Amino acid sequence: MRFARYKNGISSTFGIVSGELLEDIHGTPFGAYEKTGMTHHLDAVELLVPFKPRTFYAAGINYTEHIKEIAAQQGRDPNFPEKPDIGYRANNALIAHGQPIVKPKDATDHLQYEGELVVVIGKQAKNVSFDEALECVLGYTIGNDVSERTWQASDRTFWRAKNSDTFKPMGPWIETQVDLDLMRTTVRLNGAMVSEFSTNSMIFGIETYISTMTKYLTLYPGDMIWMGTDGATQNMKIGDVCEIEIEGIGVLRNPIVEEE
Amino acid sequence: MRFARYKNGISSTFGIVSGELLEDIHGTPFGAYEKTGMTHHLDAVELLVPFKPRTFYAAGINYTEHIKEIAAQQGRDPNFPEKPDIGYRANNALIAHGQPIVKPKDATDHLQYEGELVVVIGKQAKNVSFDEALECVLGYTIGNDVSERTWQASDRTFWRAKNSDTFKPMGPWIETQVDLDLMRTTVRLNGAMVSEFSTNSMIFGIETYISTMTKYLTLYPGDMIWMGTDGATQNMKIGDVCEIEIEGIGVLRNPIVEEE
Repeated sequence: MRFARYKNGISSTFGIVSGELLEDIHGTPFGAYEKTGMTHHLDAVELLVPFKPRTFYAAGINYTEHIKEIAAQQGRDPNFPEKPDIGYRANNALIAHGQPIVKPKDATDHLQYEGELVVVIGKQAKNVSFDEALECVLGYTIGNDVSERTWQASDRTFWRAKNSDTFKPMGPWIETQVDLDLMRTTVRLNGAMVSEFSTNSMIFGIETYISTMTKYLTLYPGDMIWMGTDGATQNMKIGDVCEIEIEGIGVLRNPIVEEE
Repeated sequence: MRFARYKNGISSTFGIVSGELLEDIHGTPFGAYEKTGMTHHLDAVELLVPFKPRTFYAAGINYTEHIKEIAAQQGRDPNFPEKPDIGYRANNALIAHGQPIVKPKDATDHLQYEGELVVVIGKQAKNVSFDEALECVLGYTIGNDVSERTWQASDRTFWRAKNSDTFKPMGPWIETQVDLDLMRTTVRLNGAMVSEFSTNSMIFGIETYISTMTKYLTLYPGDMIWMGTDGATQNMKIGDVCEIEIEGIGVLRNPIVEEE
């Protein structure tokens, strides 16, 4: 099932996506809900960030080729993670499918995409085993972990490099039924494919992250984990359109614009 | 004015602290509110984390003596920050005044306190100047940035070292009127003073952080910034009680207990 959140007058509401239609619901995908009977064409609504995240977790480095790529860009040897240390991103940076990524005035040309699978937590979880880990997952969406590489190399934390306003496009919706092992992530810049990888070929998989994290922390409904990216990353310039597609979920599309 | 949040039956509500009394309000300190006429003795209520934070920012290293102390503990030279790079902590770890800090089963003896001033954002802010920076601040509370030093040295991010469940005591309330330059932070372990410093003697002050951060990101009501700690830190063992006092705000007191 696909849950989207959309603008409904001055407020927002959730709906279930069925083909080209959006069936409005009363309630949220994280609890009880019922269809209201109201239906929209998807083209006729403005999609929002698919949910308001509670804690924004991010694996960061979690695919082999990406680690080599960034190390080469920074002129150093690659550091492969020895254990699944989870990191953080910030909600201020989130934008929805279709909204513009604003390139800050003083950003360099090295503003790059990172196509990522986003895991949406649906149930409270502490001390879950590897085998039980996916039971707390409600579904999946797509994230673009936009990164300014010069700042990424110079900032002690990644606050500006990865969390400037609009640097975290996410959407278009939450998909609850996926086949992780069959999925591929494709990134297109102005329609041309620039990166493509097996979505689930992570160094540490979703079950490993969730079981390790919940040994020390409680996951709550509305938390999310961005799982990292693989492959080549290229610069995005003003006027470009970046698309991330993950088979079985959909396409996240955002233009890059200049800061006013 | 002092705003506290407390348990009111099965829900929570805000109140205004006046001496030993808590005057219940309808609304929140972040918007319109009015007194309901209901009053409690402070001793008769259970205080909660004083608000539900939106984004949890943390300066991390922001006082000279603390940076030297941690470097010495880790057997390396101190690294002083060259610019105000803001970091993140996670909401899962928050607990209220009075609630127990649970030492994880596999934590080492190096579980330490860090007494910190917490800045509570009250107004949306982007591109604010140094001089205007404090206008978006609603008030201040106290945080204990509990840290497991062995994990802090080994984890790529500080997720486990600083964000294990219960590692972020915060409270007891939000104080809106303070004199930053006169305030001193005192830490007591089982009643004995173990650390004491001038609260505002930061490497990068609140105005510098807010004006720098908002060049790239929007601060929202309910965001908060933990400003870092100074001075010596010592181990806390099971059975200890840790108190952080900041003059003009109050005392944050939490016992340390064993994981069951």
